[in-house]
Amino acid sequence: MEDFKDLKETMIKSEEIFSGKVVHLFKDTVELLNGKRTTRETVRHVGAVAIVPVTDDGEVIIELQYRYPVNQVVKEIPAGKLDSKAEDPLAAAKRELEEETGYTADVWTEMGMYYPTPAYSDEVITIYLAKGLHKGVRNLDENEFLNVRKERLSDLVRDVMQGKIMDGKTQVGLLKAYCLEQSLSSH
Amino acid sequence: MEDFKDLKETMIKSEEIFSGKVVHLFKDTVELLNGKRTTRETVRHVGAVAIVPVTDDGEVIIELQYRYPVNQVVKEIPAGKLDSKAEDPLAAAKRELEEETGYTADVWTEMGMYYPTPAYSDEVITIYLAKGLHKGVRNLDENEFLNVRKERLSDLVRDVMQGKIMDGKTQVGLLKAYCLEQSLSSH
Repeated sequence: MEDFKDLKETMIKSEEIFSGKVVHLFKDTVELLNGKRTTRETVRHVGAVAIVPVTDDGEVIIELQYRYPVNQVVKEIPAGKLDSKAEDPLAAAKRELEEETGYTADVWTEMGMYYPTPAYSDEVITIYLAKGLHKGVRNLDENEFLNVRKERLSDLVRDVMQGKIMDGKTQVGLLKAYCLEQSLSSH
Repeated sequence: MEDFKDLKETMIKSEEIFSGKVVHLFKDTVELLNGKRTTRETVRHVGAVAIVPVTDDGEVIIELQYRYPVNQVVKEIPAGKLDSKAEDPLAAAKRELEEETGYTADVWTEMGMYYPTPAYSDEVITIYLAKGLHKGVRNLDENEFLNVRKERLSDLVRDVMQGKIMDGKTQVGLLKAYCLEQSLSSH
């Protein structure tokens, strides 16, 4: 299997298809390595944050939220969109955690970023571990509806491995939090 | 924090915005729990598979592929779209692994499904662990360009935890494969 030397595609033109609240869709024409042209459908997204809030007792604050595209109530870690591309992700994470669950946290650890769907979107999600939790009062947007639960991290990781938790950021966040705790407890 | 009794939203109307090769975009109007109406931008997607192919020596077959939306070469596990919603995901996984890397596998284990972005898409990705690998000849689509590497699973998991691997399905797949091996080796 011989390597391709340069994998980059070159943009020839960009056409805006739709500009919505969440999805900003473009259909771009690109030139490939072999000189041929093709189109790339690309969702431009403002970016998002997600938080794994873990209590001193090893429980995770987790949400149940109806997700219209998949027509079901999805179990998810707290999360939300940035206000703008320029917003500090940590500030967004603190805001979303408090608005959705009422909790604030003393200790914030970044657990890395990821691209949920780099084939057709530039969305980046930054995930935080939040500890030293204090319970307060949640402050949902008027048109936001979700329920909050507390479950053991170990039980949630088992549910991820058994396919009972289907949300991507929740799988990534819980698995990273679990690996982090394992590696800390082995040193 | 009182619970909402029913979280479901009711579709009032659905408007098709764009039908492309990958992205099929709708702007739907829904009724919320409080009787108000809002819109939901929803990408309908055919679904995808991703594969963590692990050699007998504990190395993972991994790819370097340019992703236009994020304008960089991304390190990813082998993956691809289903041919249709009706296609068997395992059949798709076998096809994609062989086409992209040349490898076939004797032992396939499903590691669960997930929604990469349930807030605005119905895409489902099914992830498989593939073992008992046999090297063959890859057969890329004419307009597909990617390079193949072999790296140790433990090194890749470290890179995921350190934020050096940014692709979502790759983070989920590698972390699940790692947790699975850990739990098998502890019994």
